[in-house]
Amino acid sequence: MSIMYILKIEFFGYFAAFLTTVAFIPQLIKTLKTKKAEDVSLVTLIMFICGVGFWIIYGYKISSSPILIANIVTLTLNLFILITKLYYSKNT
Amino acid sequence: MSIMYILKIEFFGYFAAFLTTVAFIPQLIKTLKTKKAEDVSLVTLIMFICGVGFWIIYGYKISSSPILIANIVTLTLNLFILITKLYYSKNT
Repeated sequence: MSIMYILKIEFFGYFAAFLTTVAFIPQLIKTLKTKKAEDVSLVTLIMFICGVGFWIIYGYKISSSPILIANIVTLTLNLFILITKLYYSKNT
Repeated sequence: MSIMYILKIEFFGYFAAFLTTVAFIPQLIKTLKTKKAEDVSLVTLIMFICGVGFWIIYGYKISSSPILIANIVTLTLNLFILITKLYYSKNT
């Protein structure tokens, strides 16, 4: 395999990680704007956050910076979505 | 590194993949039950689905069955969430 081919493959991985990470920014903005996230499943959020936590442990154990960085950002965004969801559900 | 240690590390990866995949089942069930997903961000869903699509390409290119399988399930679940969201938003 040539270096160019490997780089091309790695691009898909980095682009995938970028998209599945920043994808949660619009959800956070929407929740903050509409001040509700009633339709967003609490169980999904909690399971997803736990899963991302395990990805962080895995990324740390195999010393993979992309897995570590992408999942720390995803965890942070989803924790904010969870907090805003809970905050607004209490206030209604 | 002993085989037991490697297996322990791999466990975190598989458990992480399992959680971040099945996490979307409660969201799908909730959307089907309440017949609405107004608060679920459409932009988040589309970006996430595209990202998962790139994970599938990446998993295929590096011949990683866990990445491939986990992301095909995640893609399917999120496509169903997207379709139900769009379906119910049209019917209200």
